[in-house]
Amino acid sequence: MKAADYAAVSPREVRQMIREGKWDKPTPGMCSGHVQGNLVILPKDLAYDFLVFAQRNPKPCPILDVTEPGDPEPKIVAPGADLSTDLPRYRVWVDGTVIDEPTDVKKYWRDDLVGFLLGCSFSFEGALLDAGIPVRHIEQNRNVPMYVTNIQCTPAGALSGPVVVSMRPIPAHLVPKAVLCTGRFPAVHGAPIHIGDPAQIGIADIMKPDLFWACGCTPQAAIMAVKPPFCITHLPGHMFVADPRDADYAVF
Amino acid sequence: MKAADYAAVSPREVRQMIREGKWDKPTPGMCSGHVQGNLVILPKDLAYDFLVFAQRNPKPCPILDVTEPGDPEPKIVAPGADLSTDLPRYRVWVDGTVIDEPTDVKKYWRDDLVGFLLGCSFSFEGALLDAGIPVRHIEQNRNVPMYVTNIQCTPAGALSGPVVVSMRPIPAHLVPKAVLCTGRFPAVHGAPIHIGDPAQIGIADIMKPDLFWACGCTPQAAIMAVKPPFCITHLPGHMFVADPRDADYAVF
Repeated sequence: MKAADYAAVSPREVRQMIREGKWDKPTPGMCSGHVQGNLVILPKDLAYDFLVFAQRNPKPCPILDVTEPGDPEPKIVAPGADLSTDLPRYRVWVDGTVIDEPTDVKKYWRDDLVGFLLGCSFSFEGALLDAGIPVRHIEQNRNVPMYVTNIQCTPAGALSGPVVVSMRPIPAHLVPKAVLCTGRFPAVHGAPIHIGDPAQIGIADIMKPDLFWACGCTPQAAIMAVKPPFCITHLPGHMFVADPRDADYAVF
Repeated sequence: MKAADYAAVSPREVRQMIREGKWDKPTPGMCSGHVQGNLVILPKDLAYDFLVFAQRNPKPCPILDVTEPGDPEPKIVAPGADLSTDLPRYRVWVDGTVIDEPTDVKKYWRDDLVGFLLGCSFSFEGALLDAGIPVRHIEQNRNVPMYVTNIQCTPAGALSGPVVVSMRPIPAHLVPKAVLCTGRFPAVHGAPIHIGDPAQIGIADIMKPDLFWACGCTPQAAIMAVKPPFCITHLPGHMFVADPRDADYAVF
């Protein structure tokens, strides 16, 4: 079975399958039309700085849910789910180094941990495709290309770092349509932050003018730069599949 | 002089005038086209709950800026300004009771205080007027009518409470236009949360179907319900005049 075979399965069923250890691969393509989230789990003493950082950098850090300290249930976007078991694979960080990539983090859970789910640009790709805009990395069955830019996030407390972007090449005549399509979804990174010459945002190694969206890897990059004593994230591509539909995050 | 006489004056000059004690009246009408903010100042130990509350209730609680603990400068929306002196009048709360309504709060300032500026629906009224949509309370030179609804905010930590709304009667044929105009500004409450029968959201004492927007009084109501040992807010109508233009908060 591959991810696309679960396109029509409900988020609840997919999470149950993951919780039972029956799926440890990337999630893009599963539960089509439902939002998937980046995961960051932090001790409460870093959680305040992280919330302020997200508030100051809403394009790369759109927060979908914050759990109560010690409680792994994301009550807003997936009542009954468990952030310590319902992602296919995790990264456990100690002092900024990955010490484990397990399929659940039950044995690492602590009473002071707060879980953050952050929006992911995969959530607006359905809107692009529906509008007849090709998405190359989907066509090529690859992960979306990501780049570190020279744009700095607004710091907050201990956290700072560059904005990370995802890139999608879009035919020139469809660029305005792509901007409008994605601009409706600020909770999952919204409109591009840059169109055109990659060098203008400090990206030297690609040649063509393209569209760049703020990426949910930005907050992880900022946290890792601090090398906190303890932290858990998802393994890239192994996202949390939440209940709301992508369209629920259209702005109103 | 009345507020409208300062419509074309810069936010920096108006804040300086307020800081020097030369203006202690309401701010609507001053610095036309620039955002004005609701103020909440809390001890750091309540600030985390407040941030999570705002994240869970973005329609009534759009945060524009969060200051560093102990530092009254809102660096994002007004570098050089001082939240302890630059509003015309404050309310100082002890155990849920107003103990003072001073024109500055320098003598109350503490090293653990965090200032929050929250968006205000006045910021989208320019867009309504520009679109040819009449705004009755401006025509009548009165404050916007506000009502407590039976819609509950999503709680966070110690904070919970009902959504407070502001109401604007809009001619029926202009309702879709009013929804679209304000929907572009989620950072200042965005589109209405209810159109039509007030009784459906628990408002019994007005008769006509109208448009209701989530209101920046909601977070203050939630905080006051907790009766925190110490808290400072603006006096209603006596807002913080920030540097950004209303249009800077159009979604993208």
